[in-house]
Amino acid sequence: MKKRLFTPGPTPVPVGTLLAMAVPIMHHRSSEFSSILAEVKEDLKYVFQTKNDVLILAATGTGAMEGAVTNTLSPKDTALIVRAGKFGERWAEICEAFGVKTITLDIEWGRCIKPVEIARALEEHSEIKAVFIQAHETSTGVKFPLKEIGEIVKEKKDTILVVDAISALGAIEVKTDEWHLDVVVAGSQKALMLPPGLAFVCLNEKAWRFVEKANLPKYYFDFKKERKSQAKNQTAYTAAVSLILGLRESLRHIKKEGLENIINRHKRLSLAVKNAIKAMGLTLFTKENPSEALTAIQAPDGIDAQAIVKKLREKGISVAGGQARLKGKIFRISHMGYVDEHDMVVVISALERVLKELGYPIEMGIGLKAMQEVFTSN
Amino acid sequence: MKKRLFTPGPTPVPVGTLLAMAVPIMHHRSSEFSSILAEVKEDLKYVFQTKNDVLILAATGTGAMEGAVTNTLSPKDTALIVRAGKFGERWAEICEAFGVKTITLDIEWGRCIKPVEIARALEEHSEIKAVFIQAHETSTGVKFPLKEIGEIVKEKKDTILVVDAISALGAIEVKTDEWHLDVVVAGSQKALMLPPGLAFVCLNEKAWRFVEKANLPKYYFDFKKERKSQAKNQTAYTAAVSLILGLRESLRHIKKEGLENIINRHKRLSLAVKNAIKAMGLTLFTKENPSEALTAIQAPDGIDAQAIVKKLREKGISVAGGQARLKGKIFRISHMGYVDEHDMVVVISALERVLKELGYPIEMGIGLKAMQEVFTSN
Repeated sequence: MKKRLFTPGPTPVPVGTLLAMAVPIMHHRSSEFSSILAEVKEDLKYVFQTKNDVLILAATGTGAMEGAVTNTLSPKDTALIVRAGKFGERWAEICEAFGVKTITLDIEWGRCIKPVEIARALEEHSEIKAVFIQAHETSTGVKFPLKEIGEIVKEKKDTILVVDAISALGAIEVKTDEWHLDVVVAGSQKALMLPPGLAFVCLNEKAWRFVEKANLPKYYFDFKKERKSQAKNQTAYTAAVSLILGLRESLRHIKKEGLENIINRHKRLSLAVKNAIKAMGLTLFTKENPSEALTAIQAPDGIDAQAIVKKLREKGISVAGGQARLKGKIFRISHMGYVDEHDMVVVISALERVLKELGYPIEMGIGLKAMQEVFTSN
Repeated sequence: MKKRLFTPGPTPVPVGTLLAMAVPIMHHRSSEFSSILAEVKEDLKYVFQTKNDVLILAATGTGAMEGAVTNTLSPKDTALIVRAGKFGERWAEICEAFGVKTITLDIEWGRCIKPVEIARALEEHSEIKAVFIQAHETSTGVKFPLKEIGEIVKEKKDTILVVDAISALGAIEVKTDEWHLDVVVAGSQKALMLPPGLAFVCLNEKAWRFVEKANLPKYYFDFKKERKSQAKNQTAYTAAVSLILGLRESLRHIKKEGLENIINRHKRLSLAVKNAIKAMGLTLFTKENPSEALTAIQAPDGIDAQAIVKKLREKGISVAGGQARLKGKIFRISHMGYVDEHDMVVVISALERVLKELGYPIEMGIGLKAMQEVFTSN
């Protein structure tokens, strides 16, 4: 069966990138590999929209999230965590695992934080050293107002803003420098169109000052050590050589298409899918500020979301179900990375048929028609 | 230029394995991927020679080394570290980074520890919770007497033996269960013939009892959490899907050739290379108990080892130089993983020519002749 991936990570990898990784392994301390590392380091700055170095780690995104905590904080420091879904919970879990005190802003899943809530928390708790948030919460599809939050945190010289952009970078706008995002974490298997196994982290000068003082324990994810090595176009430990070859390929694609065009493509695909969903009489789970990288949808009354996921999979289409408390209640269609209009037609047409099979009253083609309206507009 | 890799990690990856990884990404929570994970988990037990589960981590070996420390120990615990090279130093650095007290057995680089030294240290310091060692020290080429050390540590109910077998597993004998190795760490890019990016760790019942009590901070490398997920053929965080597809391929090769045959092949290649080196009038750097996975060689008087490495590289042959204090003094030829007799003929013939070019008095063919004697013997 021909299989198609519409999950918010991993996402499809272009065949050219897969083959770029299928070349004989080179040594990670060779000059040949160093020159590749030099190239990808520069191109990563373009995607992160930063003038600062982006560190490359051999791990998945969670490893870089851990490093973002252990490299910037010390035991008993206080962190403010926007907890609006499963990945906000992860920030809290990491902080707690390392003995960082947490203050959580618990937001109803599917809703967005208001920047004023951050401002208020920072006023009430001057001891807050870092604010942890997602660029968007992949579990709910909500995009957070990073620009406004960046404006607030930048005024606090003893507080940094740490952003998990693992599934956002390269799909939606994440202006690292312009928005004053002090630490930004990303991963390979999302909009960067690569297999899982690489993580990235970018720190600005303010964040590096925190690193100097931080004394939580770390070794594998020691950013200072990595920074020193990567300044010499090496990695501190063995680099994931083949994935970095794939990264070079992916970044070349991104530069060629252009970040602005890529972000516009994601907006267009998102609008088409969201309009189709509404035309089909379904409800978006995301109540406020939906991300353009994925669409989170409530299962219709009386239908288990997991049944939708399962029936789609039987047709070769992988979408994601709900995570944790949302399991069975929602399903999520990713439109990030290496996907286009035609892919979206495929997933919506399959969804129409699956819903009909599950007894949901739907006129065939109604979602597709709504998509066509978007695709034929300017 | 046709390039050939003779470094003790990364090692050559068979083309079939490279292509097995170049297939469309599947989702890490799909049943298809779970069945692959189930297969590789079983096959890893074969390579580790264990009945216990082997955890798979998305990181390079150092990450699993860190996990081996943080999952078994608590702050202020005492560790005994065999420090006989760069990787012994790494155990000490990790312990120190996490606030574990270290007692080091410092061995001259190139020499081997005597098991009685471990026994003596354990008698003198009953507070030692864990002994950290390498299966062989890749920086010096010395193989350690794990079987005898295992016998000693198994008598101590409050002490575990933790072995870095990153570049040893699948090349030389590492009998996890029979030798009472409580924790064994391995990596993908050595004798397992894969690109860098996966690490493995196997704990026995005694080690899992330590895990229950250990309270050093950890999150990404949380073995209990991984064990729970991997029992259900999932990974706690996103799996490095493509590398695991490669792993399946590699493990199938290993099972087909048979572990005993593989270990004998490494012994034969090692003997041939070491005999050739001696016939060429060169001196092994490894003074005692040389490993069969690599050969560490002293540069002749008046010749910089880095010049040998460089000239070989100009001929398309990558060998490793010395690390840290051995830089410029030694070079290392790996014969682990996907290599055979013909590969060894290539590297020795190139070395003969390079030495001659560097002014070393050598009769062409003398090393090759010594190899042929090994290859024509039983």
